[in-house]
Amino acid sequence: MHPIVQRVIQGDKRAIARALTLIENDDESKRELLQGFYPYAGRAHIVGFTGSPGAGKSTLVDQVIAYLRASGKKVGVLAVDPSSPFSGGALLGDRVRMIRHSSDPGVYIRSMGSRGSLGGLGRSTREMLYALEAYGCDVILLETVGVGQSELDVMTVADTVALVLTPGSGDHVQTAKAGIMEIADVFVVNKQELPGADALVRELQLMLHDKRQYREDWKNPIVRTSATAGEGIEQLWAEMTRHYEHIRTHGYLAQRRKQRHMEETMKLVETAFAKYLRARAASDESWRSVLMDDLQADPYIASEKILRDLPWIRL
Amino acid sequence: MHPIVQRVIQGDKRAIARALTLIENDDESKRELLQGFYPYAGRAHIVGFTGSPGAGKSTLVDQVIAYLRASGKKVGVLAVDPSSPFSGGALLGDRVRMIRHSSDPGVYIRSMGSRGSLGGLGRSTREMLYALEAYGCDVILLETVGVGQSELDVMTVADTVALVLTPGSGDHVQTAKAGIMEIADVFVVNKQELPGADALVRELQLMLHDKRQYREDWKNPIVRTSATAGEGIEQLWAEMTRHYEHIRTHGYLAQRRKQRHMEETMKLVETAFAKYLRARAASDESWRSVLMDDLQADPYIASEKILRDLPWIRL
Repeated sequence: MHPIVQRVIQGDKRAIARALTLIENDDESKRELLQGFYPYAGRAHIVGFTGSPGAGKSTLVDQVIAYLRASGKKVGVLAVDPSSPFSGGALLGDRVRMIRHSSDPGVYIRSMGSRGSLGGLGRSTREMLYALEAYGCDVILLETVGVGQSELDVMTVADTVALVLTPGSGDHVQTAKAGIMEIADVFVVNKQELPGADALVRELQLMLHDKRQYREDWKNPIVRTSATAGEGIEQLWAEMTRHYEHIRTHGYLAQRRKQRHMEETMKLVETAFAKYLRARAASDESWRSVLMDDLQADPYIASEKILRDLPWIRL
Repeated sequence: MHPIVQRVIQGDKRAIARALTLIENDDESKRELLQGFYPYAGRAHIVGFTGSPGAGKSTLVDQVIAYLRASGKKVGVLAVDPSSPFSGGALLGDRVRMIRHSSDPGVYIRSMGSRGSLGGLGRSTREMLYALEAYGCDVILLETVGVGQSELDVMTVADTVALVLTPGSGDHVQTAKAGIMEIADVFVVNKQELPGADALVRELQLMLHDKRQYREDWKNPIVRTSATAGEGIEQLWAEMTRHYEHIRTHGYLAQRRKQRHMEETMKLVETAFAKYLRARAASDESWRSVLMDDLQADPYIASEKILRDLPWIRL
């Protein structure tokens, strides 16, 4: 076993920092590290927080950390910003608040930018979670900035996803957030003291009422919070826990883990194949000409020529 | 040749609408359609507009359409919103302005959401561009909403990329937009009448001054515009054209096309392989057990077991 693995399992804060950096940099030791961390997969409750910039996610996460610490839980925080190339120790702008927790030995906070995205942010995130689970975290809070596919990819690794909305922020429930609406387990109406909070709750209720099918038989609760005032945090966490119990006792968590294991394995096999393709393209003269010179053939025709040389791919 | 291909080439507006829908839906006729469209690849100057929401991209695109129409160019517009599942005819919120052009036979406007993202938004976008090029567009304006990897993927298919910035909007040149900064060919300071425009221009100049290497020997110009007042559009287009001439005469355009052809072909081969993998996983008992049941083995070990059954992948 890699010496860092042992130290991470013992809860050494410097070791977990080092391990995450090695994973993020796709270091050659990564393979061995992950092998050591993998047996701990599934130990922690992984909770994702998503929503528009300005919805108050960071403040909410900060409050949830404080709440969890008060009940003695060991907490990991992974803040993912797909649009930023920065990562490592750097805390992004409005995450400064969380710094107050960083001296607490029961909290480990880490930011990740798009740099660690070799093979997709989803994969890097998942691998860093394995390390944090081995480190002994009971709960890992995953926060993403930004929207779009990157965010959805990141959120698929969470057990419970909270979508944080704010009244009057132009968060139109029915339209823009559709992809995210579908993966959210708990809806949070933050800044509940603002005008429009009731309307937003009603809009969500209406949407849930119209929903024909609930994913994994889970009826999404709506929780009102005021992160700055510290209101609603207890109820929010109660709903998070209720969701986790629900997917665990009904077998959905086990099912998800199987699915994830398959997807991760498939991705690695596909990456190996892509490497092989590129290496052969560089050395095989006839491939080079198909790929680079014969531009009259459209990519479909070109790909068929390449596939003819790979007859073991039987479609 | 597919009958729709013939009609698209003749400039039939209903045919191009139909063709784009078939491509977006990954219809079985897609393969044949693309074969017909591919010979027209490279006919149009493809210009991407990117930047934060609220930077005024839609208004700018609207003005550029008007300018190009005045000089007799046939214009296609592809508006891509990676965060929206909606697509087809639907014009998104602030794109309503562009509707005034939609009755003009020399303009074709299309929105695309994340729905058409089988195999990545980049691929769908590229395939739709082939159709628009065959339709006879001289210029195709590509507008994206949102940030992150999806947007970068979309922008790699453009010949010339404009990054639209606005004074005082918190667009920090040095930080958040780093990935996009690198692919931008022309910087646009829009809403130039706002306070802070001079500072933003200086910030860009400084950044360009510090740049050690210019991609493709191109010194990125900075253009000031006021899209709502219609100012700076002529100069903006002059810089776009100058960039296109630059990459054409210095061979970079041809080089990019080769690279793109290779990447697209590779992606198709990889997709075929992924399909094969999934089909075999469903039928091969020993694979099923590696992928779904043996969760104790981490995905790396599992992938090595699978790769042992695929010895032709020599790494």
